[in-house]
Amino acid sequence: MADLRSDTLTRPTAQMREAMTAAPVGDDVYGEDPTVAELEARVAQLLGHETALFMPTGSMANQVGLRLHAGPGQEIITDHLAHVLRAELGAAAACSGITTRSWVATRGLLEVDTALAMMVPDGGAYQVSTAAVVVENTHNFGGGTVQPLEEMQRLRAATREVGVGVHLDGARLWNAHVATGVPLADYGRCADTVSVCLSKGLGAPVGSVLAADADRIGEARVLRKRLGGGMRQVGILAAAGLHALEHHVERLAQDHARAQATAQHLAQVAPEVVDPQHVQTNILVLDVGAAGWAAGEFIEAAGSEGVLGYPTDARHARFVWHLDVDDAMTDHARAVLGMLLSDPGRSPRP
Amino acid sequence: MADLRSDTLTRPTAQMREAMTAAPVGDDVYGEDPTVAELEARVAQLLGHETALFMPTGSMANQVGLRLHAGPGQEIITDHLAHVLRAELGAAAACSGITTRSWVATRGLLEVDTALAMMVPDGGAYQVSTAAVVVENTHNFGGGTVQPLEEMQRLRAATREVGVGVHLDGARLWNAHVATGVPLADYGRCADTVSVCLSKGLGAPVGSVLAADADRIGEARVLRKRLGGGMRQVGILAAAGLHALEHHVERLAQDHARAQATAQHLAQVAPEVVDPQHVQTNILVLDVGAAGWAAGEFIEAAGSEGVLGYPTDARHARFVWHLDVDDAMTDHARAVLGMLLSDPGRSPRP
Amino acid sequence: MADLRSDTLTRPTAQMREAMTAAPVGDDVYGEDPTVAELEARVAQLLGHETALFMPTGSMANQVGLRLHAGPGQEIITDHLAHVLRAELGAAAACSGITTRSWVATRGLLEVDTALAMMVPDGGAYQVSTAAVVVENTHNFGGGTVQPLEEMQRLRAATREVGVGVHLDGARLWNAHVATGVPLADYGRCADTVSVCLSKGLGAPVGSVLAADADRIGEARVLRKRLGGGMRQVGILAAAGLHALEHHVERLAQDHARAQATAQHLAQVAPEVVDPQHVQTNILVLDVGAAGWAAGEFIEAAGSEGVLGYPTDARHARFVWHLDVDDAMTDHARAVLGMLLSDPGRSPRP
Amino acid sequence: MADLRSDTLTRPTAQMREAMTAAPVGDDVYGEDPTVAELEARVAQLLGHETALFMPTGSMANQVGLRLHAGPGQEIITDHLAHVLRAELGAAAACSGITTRSWVATRGLLEVDTALAMMVPDGGAYQVSTAAVVVENTHNFGGGTVQPLEEMQRLRAATREVGVGVHLDGARLWNAHVATGVPLADYGRCADTVSVCLSKGLGAPVGSVLAADADRIGEARVLRKRLGGGMRQVGILAAAGLHALEHHVERLAQDHARAQATAQHLAQVAPEVVDPQHVQTNILVLDVGAAGWAAGEFIEAAGSEGVLGYPTDARHARFVWHLDVDDAMTDHARAVLGMLLSDPGRSPRP
Repeated sequence: MADLRSDTLTRPTAQMREAMTAAPVGDDVYGEDPTVAELEARVAQLLGHETALFMPTGSMANQVGLRLHAGPGQEIITDHLAHVLRAELGAAAACSGITTRSWVATRGLLEVDTALAMMVPDGGAYQVSTAAVVVENTHNFGGGTVQPLEEMQRLRAATREVGVGVHLDGARLWNAHVATGVPLADYGRCADTVSVCLSKGLGAPVGSVLAADADRIGEARVLRKRLGGGMRQVGILAAAGLHALEHHVERLAQDHARAQATAQHLAQVAPEVVDPQHVQTNILVLDVGAAGWAAGEFIEAAGSEGVLGYPTDARHARFVWHLDVDDAMTDHARAVLGMLLSDPGRSPRP
Repeated sequence: MADLRSDTLTRPTAQMREAMTAAPVGDDVYGEDPTVAELEARVAQLLGHETALFMPTGSMANQVGLRLHAGPGQEIITDHLAHVLRAELGAAAACSGITTRSWVATRGLLEVDTALAMMVPDGGAYQVSTAAVVVENTHNFGGGTVQPLEEMQRLRAATREVGVGVHLDGARLWNAHVATGVPLADYGRCADTVSVCLSKGLGAPVGSVLAADADRIGEARVLRKRLGGGMRQVGILAAAGLHALEHHVERLAQDHARAQATAQHLAQVAPEVVDPQHVQTNILVLDVGAAGWAAGEFIEAAGSEGVLGYPTDARHARFVWHLDVDDAMTDHARAVLGMLLSDPGRSPRP
Repeated sequence: MADLRSDTLTRPTAQMREAMTAAPVGDDVYGEDPTVAELEARVAQLLGHETALFMPTGSMANQVGLRLHAGPGQEIITDHLAHVLRAELGAAAACSGITTRSWVATRGLLEVDTALAMMVPDGGAYQVSTAAVVVENTHNFGGGTVQPLEEMQRLRAATREVGVGVHLDGARLWNAHVATGVPLADYGRCADTVSVCLSKGLGAPVGSVLAADADRIGEARVLRKRLGGGMRQVGILAAAGLHALEHHVERLAQDHARAQATAQHLAQVAPEVVDPQHVQTNILVLDVGAAGWAAGEFIEAAGSEGVLGYPTDARHARFVWHLDVDDAMTDHARAVLGMLLSDPGRSPRP
Repeated sequence: MADLRSDTLTRPTAQMREAMTAAPVGDDVYGEDPTVAELEARVAQLLGHETALFMPTGSMANQVGLRLHAGPGQEIITDHLAHVLRAELGAAAACSGITTRSWVATRGLLEVDTALAMMVPDGGAYQVSTAAVVVENTHNFGGGTVQPLEEMQRLRAATREVGVGVHLDGARLWNAHVATGVPLADYGRCADTVSVCLSKGLGAPVGSVLAADADRIGEARVLRKRLGGGMRQVGILAAAGLHALEHHVERLAQDHARAQATAQHLAQVAPEVVDPQHVQTNILVLDVGAAGWAAGEFIEAAGSEGVLGYPTDARHARFVWHLDVDDAMTDHARAVLGMLLSDPGRSPRP
């Protein structure tokens, strides 16, 4: 059985659990948890930011990040597949009154010129003002796409000139770092606010971190509490994060290699469903529609053979490699997916 | 002097003022104003809807319309230049918690296939659900673009199948009707909710109307009151609207003709700034950037010659024809704009 | 027939309509309507404030006023019967994210000590911070209660010391002024933001005004537009307001006298239902429950005799005097209400 | 050193950490964590509800609970010291658009008649409608006050008749249960939605639970995700909660006894600052203002002697007993607080 639905499925390892058991803790609402403080300092340093704040989820880290840029009636812009727009249940509008516009991007790849043309830095009393641009790196629904550092830097420079902010949704920034060798801080410095997740590829059970300057993080503590994210003896969870940062970052390369190998195999079987060059990290998106499959039915067929994935829309199926997927599972997935794509008789063409 | 900044500038005529003076009125919060009732019935009938509700502004008509489709955390999609996204100060998010995505559209022209591909009718607990698509006809920031009826009908049919709604921002639907001859009700039937403005080309001083079925309009009364739009003896204003419907619809053809004539003249002078085929109604957008002008400076230069317009972004200047612009003003505008575009010495090229 | 449901029912007089017909107008979204400007200046001066802004309704004037004091998650406090809490459909929370607490007040009378004890000027990251206190003068659901100037001044002084604001809901401040002789500006100076209505006792068909300093009013223009209150040639309505300020303020004394005379008559018939000392302005609230009536049934019985009122809750019936209620109507109301209260056989006691 | 600032300070015991280490886990966003499922079932059963949902904090449990009752513009009513109004940073308004009114209650004691008189079950288009009443048991800022079961039952019966809901903020319901012997389910059945905390007196590091019927909990999953509370391998935390339910409920009696003993001692020293009958559970509130102290200075003076508390307002100091406070610390606290209250020379009277 290969559970490739998401890298959120990772379970803490025995060593990680030991680290959690041993962690000193305190009341983090009062800022008194030493393990949380250590994690926050570590992540801030890695990302090249002044300080950071532990968050229960990546969604909350993103939403607090957006709110630091924009108040009610102000605008955030990004691509139409961004996690903050599609997968956080409308929180930016519902909980913060932030309005959003988007452009249609291929595989989630950052389009700096589109962003610059769309934004209205100061709309005054007649037009909505753009407060920030969101960059997602790697891009989840785009298929694990890595954003080019040069483009992020170009966006950073151009937005800074006109007083528009940048938020980096770095839930999988570790994957971009491992795939490219670009230091995390180089990415981090392209944004005013950066969110990263410990609970996805890194394998911690719970936890994300928002990095920014000290003023913003001070405000973020209030926003986190308002959203109901002010937890108490969080060191238990932070210890898992620290362990993951120590032991689980470099191994992401294995996930990438397994996803890539699978992509190359499937491209031989059905070149129309995947271009291996587009599989840059741990996410494999198959255009099963190009092979005549409805995504839902393809996922169901794969599942009945023990390979679990996720239909991202009517024609695309997503498979994600992570800590709990080994070579044997990868081989099995390759075989099953290849079989489904190669055997036209399996597909429900009329 | 030709004030072409917007068709919102129209002043009520003497006859319209007389109609206002004579209007019987009542307390419209209690639903007791007979002139308002007459206007609402008239507009509902014109648009092919069951009933309608007077609104103080087009923005409120649109925002209440959107809220009838979507609650907090649900999604509305439209193009990135839509008035509801750009020019209503983020109200959908700020006042209703509605989240939005958009695509980049040329001249605001409706892209049905893009809309259908973007929408997620039922995202459940993991993805944002799309509640409605907004169509703006004619499209203001697009340059008065008329939306093809067939495309609106195709969108209506496809969205109905999956339970997604359609809101028609018809602030200038009168212009589309006059330009194409398509009956207003044919447009109106392509949407669940339709807003129209009496205060733009039609020349009433204040007022818009939202048309829909009776259930929705019942809810709209509550939403209008919450937004602070529950006015009292509104018959005074409704009388202006009724007068405008009687006397000022067909004359919009004159505005269109004057805008078109100006466009044709300027296209001869500077073909790169305008394609007369894109001037379909009363709005003329010049790509003055193509002639080396910054839009702000072009508007300023024209203004100093008595021709007032509006810079919609860094390189586009907009001029709008309406009730208070006659042939002489049009001639003057044509002359001034032509001079600015033809005389390279006037433009601030380095 | 005496329609005493509300003073919102007033219809513009012939002279007021003439003033509207003659008014010079412009596009008020662009700040170009001379009659609006005149009205705003006049109201600001009357209230002792720097400037003012026309609003379509008293609800919008109040809601924009509250938003000028408090952002999302901040708190406004007032009594539990305040119009801003009960009768504006939750707009402060729904459209602005403002949280509210209240105390139970007798007849809406301002309780300064309760307000001071309840407010938390700076709750930091752990408690909600109080941004402002709302005073309603006269108090509608309290029965037209006039707030003592000294108490308002005491509240103003004490809140200023700790940086908490004051909003005055002065929808019927004219009535307080006429009842007490206190200059409007003396009341107005007790608050940072003041709303007044032209469409209630003053008899204008539509319109309210928010007064404050220039910075706040600048922000209020944005907030008004976001709520959909940015109307165009509003001078038509402002002219009615100017006419009302000139001709309809002092005559409010007649409304007060008629309400008082009715109260005195009814207190003789049924002393348990009304204390004439509590009828300070144009609103008469009868505790018909004390006479064995359900409020709804009492209102119905009075209505069938041509006297219209409003049940404010299960046991209270409200009757409001205004511009369109004369002595004959008052006599009729007195007779009908007296008969219903005096004749036990009429009341639906079991 | 006695840290009596709050019962949120408890640290997980060694046995609790072992339980966490051993817990089987899964992705709880997908509903696949077996330990979370076990905890949710256990809490639902204890509270007499159909099902339940794990939450990162009590604030989120409350806020999701409120949202299940009320949408934007609808009303929740409760007392003015309720945690949902004072200590959750305005989330009901800011994140859900819910409007609130309150009454002033002595020690937070439920006032059923006040609630019934204040609520407006169906305000239609003119008044705010009351969706639910909140009861907090025990009442935190009230001083650990236990709500009488009979009053809760009376509220439940009366609200059910008119379609108004009840939310029970049971963050410390365990304390009420232990103090009175009333079964948790008897309290639980007095409300449609119940929140309880595992991280306060029970000593779990993180976690709260919301109980309700299955339909509401289905909706709560969406709301939790929108607020950013959809965590992954939460079984780690749920295991701590299960351990606490097994081992830490009955021992709350010790906390109560220690608080009571301290109150009795201090009442002998300074009868004006505390009535031991009002110390019903683990919270001791001293009216140090009655002894001439400013609360902040009293807390500082006690702190310098190793006894930590919290000033709830200008004249009240709060001390809370919990899992990590033993008899020796209690003795020390008693001695220090008694000394400060008995020695007039210590207090900063002028």
